[in-house]
Amino acid sequence: MMLIQDIIAKKKLGERLSREEIDFFVDGIVSGEIPDYQTAALLMAIWIKGMDIRETVDLTMSMAESGDMLDLSEIPGMKLDKHSTGGVADTTTLILAPLVASLGFPVAKLSGRGLAHTGGTLDKLESIPGMRVDLTKRQFIEQVKDIGIAISGQTADIAPADRILYALRDVTSTTDNIALIASSIMSKKLASGADAIVLDVKTGRGAFLPDVKSSTELARLMVDIGRASGRRMAAVVTDMDQPLGTAIGNALEVIEAAETLKDPRPSRLLDIVLHLAVLMVRCAGDRRDRKLIEDDLMRALRSGAALDKLTRMVERQGGDPSYVEDPRKFELAKIVRQVTAPAGGWVSGIDALELGKASVIIGAGRKKKGDPVDFGVGISIRKHIGDTVDAGEPFATIYARSEADAASAAESCVRAYSFSEGKAKGPPLVYETIE
Amino acid sequence: MMLIQDIIAKKKLGERLSREEIDFFVDGIVSGEIPDYQTAALLMAIWIKGMDIRETVDLTMSMAESGDMLDLSEIPGMKLDKHSTGGVADTTTLILAPLVASLGFPVAKLSGRGLAHTGGTLDKLESIPGMRVDLTKRQFIEQVKDIGIAISGQTADIAPADRILYALRDVTSTTDNIALIASSIMSKKLASGADAIVLDVKTGRGAFLPDVKSSTELARLMVDIGRASGRRMAAVVTDMDQPLGTAIGNALEVIEAAETLKDPRPSRLLDIVLHLAVLMVRCAGDRRDRKLIEDDLMRALRSGAALDKLTRMVERQGGDPSYVEDPRKFELAKIVRQVTAPAGGWVSGIDALELGKASVIIGAGRKKKGDPVDFGVGISIRKHIGDTVDAGEPFATIYARSEADAASAAESCVRAYSFSEGKAKGPPLVYETIE
Repeated sequence: MMLIQDIIAKKKLGERLSREEIDFFVDGIVSGEIPDYQTAALLMAIWIKGMDIRETVDLTMSMAESGDMLDLSEIPGMKLDKHSTGGVADTTTLILAPLVASLGFPVAKLSGRGLAHTGGTLDKLESIPGMRVDLTKRQFIEQVKDIGIAISGQTADIAPADRILYALRDVTSTTDNIALIASSIMSKKLASGADAIVLDVKTGRGAFLPDVKSSTELARLMVDIGRASGRRMAAVVTDMDQPLGTAIGNALEVIEAAETLKDPRPSRLLDIVLHLAVLMVRCAGDRRDRKLIEDDLMRALRSGAALDKLTRMVERQGGDPSYVEDPRKFELAKIVRQVTAPAGGWVSGIDALELGKASVIIGAGRKKKGDPVDFGVGISIRKHIGDTVDAGEPFATIYARSEADAASAAESCVRAYSFSEGKAKGPPLVYETIE
Repeated sequence: MMLIQDIIAKKKLGERLSREEIDFFVDGIVSGEIPDYQTAALLMAIWIKGMDIRETVDLTMSMAESGDMLDLSEIPGMKLDKHSTGGVADTTTLILAPLVASLGFPVAKLSGRGLAHTGGTLDKLESIPGMRVDLTKRQFIEQVKDIGIAISGQTADIAPADRILYALRDVTSTTDNIALIASSIMSKKLASGADAIVLDVKTGRGAFLPDVKSSTELARLMVDIGRASGRRMAAVVTDMDQPLGTAIGNALEVIEAAETLKDPRPSRLLDIVLHLAVLMVRCAGDRRDRKLIEDDLMRALRSGAALDKLTRMVERQGGDPSYVEDPRKFELAKIVRQVTAPAGGWVSGIDALELGKASVIIGAGRKKKGDPVDFGVGISIRKHIGDTVDAGEPFATIYARSEADAASAAESCVRAYSFSEGKAKGPPLVYETIE
């Protein structure tokens, strides 16, 4: 007979757990037979002693199989999914998913809500009046079959074991462990049924992992896990030291996505979108040169095909498509304040974490679980690192519901921005590509 | 503001906890504000990363102060206590305590019940009809003042933090850690109020720590903790590879104690009693040579003064003293079976753990918490390692309630004993003395 005490004892000595032992543990936490305190003890032993790649794959698969496994096989073709570890001013998905779908690759994406200082795709989509993100499994599959794209919240009971472990890790100081982070993310992705998954691992002050080394380690580990369970995988490690795009806030980010789809001008945001889109298309089997694929992608943007995909998706999910076609229809918060530069020079730094937190404080995110989100508030930035700025020139615009909120966000902007008299250069955008 | 998550995070990285952090933790578990899962995570971090001597002393003091601290100051003289980590056929306390008390040193001892395969002094005492071991604090103190000796269960709310940690350690594989064991034992001893404490740390198969090295480490650590909080301390590390005395079982062990007090013939049990008694007397301030003290002790045994102390204690605690004066009055279980040697030779090994477990199985101990104890069952052994034995000679006698129990215990005896054709030598009795 297996005993959880024996499994804990093995791991505390640094020994490897077998798949059977990991299954026993995962089954036990889902059934409730293993109490939280034993789970917490094992999590701490794992945090300190680590898990090797085989154990991490086993834990991921076991958690994926702890709930529903979405079967997307009735959708023809290679189903694509994308995951970001979360960032600030990062509306990538809302541009990337319709863009890739417009080339004929089915995109079946389960997204999440904002977490801490980072935005969430579901919250952003809900700023479009009428938009539904709670599709049933059947609706999700039918929609991808019909129009080639769907973005929804969890359509089923996905990886319940991860939910339990995630909540416990949060209160037992066991979140910051590469193996536990990787298995948590990948268990949900594997259960979501896509054939190919592209990961965007953010690194820097505005990300959950601050250094390139651990972000790259996490990216490689998740790619290995996905491949070990038969998925096509690619990953990038990208900068989140400064905000990626210009918009922080839900409606603001949908506006930025729609405008980029309409008028794809060069920007860091567009660079990331194209980089990830090429990886997704190549994962789906198109092995042509990166340049040729990029040409196709730019054509799909310029022809309006990518915007049309987003419009059709919004319409199908009950949203008012006219908001995407004419983003000026979005009603932003009425108290608008410009934040201006104290002196001329260059922008030498932008603290993405500070700006992400400031947007949460004025209502764009949740201070605690279950809080409502205010779609119309946020911060729009006009300058990135390396841009020049004149004395008195506005570098950020705040949309708030009260003067106090506007003042607090303006203070955060002042704190977040650093300026220099000499020329400054922005950080790299892509640190690592794993294909 | 202190957060338990931060304390857990410190320890998982191997950093030292301050007295304030340890107090915050101990207060939190006693008040219930810190849930079991956070305690379990911290226990595992402590198990793996360890605690230094300062942290261990702090944890011990904090746990001791988490409940009532017994104040024995109204009893004149140096109050003595003794603690054993638990063994098999180890009735030392029932001989040692009255012996030392008969020399005029007050013995104020809080004892425990049987744990796993080891016996407990309270269970043994309760085999004497009428005997009470649940004295109030007042009764306990008055009795030591009046007759110089009391042995009771916890008279007050002693170290409640230890109770909580002990229960959690048991189910999270964090029992076998020197710092946690030492702080658990010493928190209760310090709260029990004695001025001088002598520790008997058992080592070997029948003990909770199997090797001399870790037993010695534990003994030294406990002595250091006691001294750091102003107590006089001494400790021994003694053998528990083979059973110490001849009796395993509650009434059987009281009989052995009473008989030793009446007629102190040379034995390993008597050797340990004298060794510990000298340490206790020296701790109490009598710094004479060991030999002179031993002479006094033997005189107290031969004169009947020591037996008289036990008789008076039994009487005072409601027990029938005639059982101690004439141990033949004890009613043992009626099914008696001899176990005989398969061939002539020497006893070369006795597995104390096997015999301890066998005695529990037939009812002398508890299979689970709250089980009743059968005072009349047990195993009496006639041979120790190094003794000669003839073919067919009985080496053990079983007292059981059913033929099945007797058969199962007999099988255990056969498994526990090894014989050799050549001369065999017993293990040392005392491995280490710390004074």
